[in-house]
Amino acid sequence: MSVTAAKGFRAAGIAAGIKESGNPDLALVVNDGPRLAAAGVFTSNRVKAAPVLWSEQVVKGGQVSAVVLNSGGANACTGPQGFQDTHATAEKVAGTLGLNAGEVAVASTGLIGVTLPMDKLLPGVGTAAAALSAHGGEKAAIAIKTTDSVHKTAVAEGAGWTVGGMAKGAGMLAPGLATMLVVLTTDADVAAPDLDRALREATRLTFDRVDSDGCMSTNDTVLLLASGAAAVTPEYAEFADAVRQVCDDLARQLIGDAEGASKDIRIEVIGAADEDDAVEVGRSIARNNLLKCAIHGEDPNWGRVLSAIGTTSAAFEPDRLNVAINDVWVCKNGSVGEDRDLVDMRYREVRITADLAAGSASAVIWANDLTADYVHENSAYSS
Amino acid sequence: MSVTAAKGFRAAGIAAGIKESGNPDLALVVNDGPRLAAAGVFTSNRVKAAPVLWSEQVVKGGQVSAVVLNSGGANACTGPQGFQDTHATAEKVAGTLGLNAGEVAVASTGLIGVTLPMDKLLPGVGTAAAALSAHGGEKAAIAIKTTDSVHKTAVAEGAGWTVGGMAKGAGMLAPGLATMLVVLTTDADVAAPDLDRALREATRLTFDRVDSDGCMSTNDTVLLLASGAAAVTPEYAEFADAVRQVCDDLARQLIGDAEGASKDIRIEVIGAADEDDAVEVGRSIARNNLLKCAIHGEDPNWGRVLSAIGTTSAAFEPDRLNVAINDVWVCKNGSVGEDRDLVDMRYREVRITADLAAGSASAVIWANDLTADYVHENSAYSS
Repeated sequence: MSVTAAKGFRAAGIAAGIKESGNPDLALVVNDGPRLAAAGVFTSNRVKAAPVLWSEQVVKGGQVSAVVLNSGGANACTGPQGFQDTHATAEKVAGTLGLNAGEVAVASTGLIGVTLPMDKLLPGVGTAAAALSAHGGEKAAIAIKTTDSVHKTAVAEGAGWTVGGMAKGAGMLAPGLATMLVVLTTDADVAAPDLDRALREATRLTFDRVDSDGCMSTNDTVLLLASGAAAVTPEYAEFADAVRQVCDDLARQLIGDAEGASKDIRIEVIGAADEDDAVEVGRSIARNNLLKCAIHGEDPNWGRVLSAIGTTSAAFEPDRLNVAINDVWVCKNGSVGEDRDLVDMRYREVRITADLAAGSASAVIWANDLTADYVHENSAYSS
Repeated sequence: MSVTAAKGFRAAGIAAGIKESGNPDLALVVNDGPRLAAAGVFTSNRVKAAPVLWSEQVVKGGQVSAVVLNSGGANACTGPQGFQDTHATAEKVAGTLGLNAGEVAVASTGLIGVTLPMDKLLPGVGTAAAALSAHGGEKAAIAIKTTDSVHKTAVAEGAGWTVGGMAKGAGMLAPGLATMLVVLTTDADVAAPDLDRALREATRLTFDRVDSDGCMSTNDTVLLLASGAAAVTPEYAEFADAVRQVCDDLARQLIGDAEGASKDIRIEVIGAADEDDAVEVGRSIARNNLLKCAIHGEDPNWGRVLSAIGTTSAAFEPDRLNVAINDVWVCKNGSVGEDRDLVDMRYREVRITADLAAGSASAVIWANDLTADYVHENSAYSS
């Protein structure tokens, strides 16, 4: 499972003492090759954490031999010291494992605006390196958790090759990307440009379409590493499909574990003039706090869906809009439709279908409800 | 006070039985002239309630002789029937008072997607007409409340003339405009074009800059009526200033009474390249759920401010950003600044100052914190 499901990778997850709780907080993933190809996608937030700035440069070379990830501190908004700390972490990994620091990606997650305890992190790198194992993927996935209630892994099998991965993220999930760290690995023999293409296609349709709370992180990082250890080069489409499957699986796990959520909301926009319109409308619905509260209260308040659609620039006529909640078309032609009492909202998954009646494009966005637990968790996080 | 502070106006507020609670739910404001000049600003939501579509047309003529407002139902997303109901309401007011229906504005607030009980509303118009009084402004303000905990009125005095007003709105406050019904009156002798200009300038800087929960209503209506009864035509600047004062006063009352809020957050963006940048950044901060939760928890979590700024397209360099919370500059040059423990957040008002260090433009946006009470109130509203 996880990042060691594919051959050619070792991983470890240990407690370095970065978290005051003593829980695991440092993960290491090493690509033993023979290929060291890699691609990455990073947050589109313009305020980027030091490890994001570093890893963007590392990935540009198309080769990554190791990834070091820590929870317990985001190393974001930490100034020049933060960047030096990231650099020192990569150097420490490189020195310990005999690698080139320019091929060591770094990822961090936790509170913004706090420098990392390097006196704990650097020795932790040595401990993690000593613990590296071809079965260490699970422990690595555990070590990157922050407020996650469970660790998240996924795998897809090809003919003689595998794509595996791990993710962390529980809140602050929004397009571009979520507050997530994701490492995907494959033993397929795929060159960096194809990895990049497959990863961008997959994230566009998966991680970029989960929107837990509308907030965009400073640290989001998704990496895909290929070892080539299976000595198989799959058809591109087949490979891309496996990458998308793993991303989709992990994205759903992120939504399912979102902070304080009691409902997973699947928003499907249909009848859009084009895909951009469908995504814009889906995100607007996903971010409507009033609707998210209503869903929490199991109230099929379709008026709030229309109100959210009305704030977008998508092509539609208000009196042609149709909305279904759990397949009951409660709004037809912009007005009252089927009886809202027919909507059964007892289950965790709630499906909203918004028909713009303006074309044939569609998109699916996943979101969560807004709950008192979300408020509690996020009003006390740093205290 | 309220809409009858200015001479030439009568008003009433009565219980027509639209609300099941039996609370007041119908207000009437009549302009007895000699002038009947009027201007209006309406929601920019593309899904507009029937009364908005109607009143937009009424106001285009520049003359309004009466405004009828109901709480207990928004008459939004109610199809052709909803528009007929609005039309019938205006006709009923016109017939009862001997006016032209084309000069009767209509405003509604309450649940979306429910048709109004016209069998109660139309007789209510007769009751309200019989109750009209030059001292009825307060009762009118009470009759337009929905989840408001208090009714909201304001007044500004010129030299021999007055601007007064009433507002309702407690949630769904967002730019363009808030979920608000506002009626302003003046006895100054001002023609419709100047009313329009003064009202647009005032709303741009007041109602358009309160953002309680990021949600935009289908029903927002702000009307300004001039009776000319004071027989004074003030200087334009002086008049516009009085209108802005009243709007500012009412806007602050809306934020102060926002659903479930425990904090009013004043977000001032300074050092912006232009005012548009300042407003964009202010709104992004105002809508960040994670920050709103942190403020609720009295946690000066400036990382979430930077994270919100980073999602905008405003001109700034991440490593030049400065952020103060209650005047303590907790973030300097995009990194850790003064000790966050110096920030005292015990009071209801919290001031966030975001310095983009990119110019000299600024803007102020008012927002609220996000609380469990907001979730409770909005998850149960229609049930």
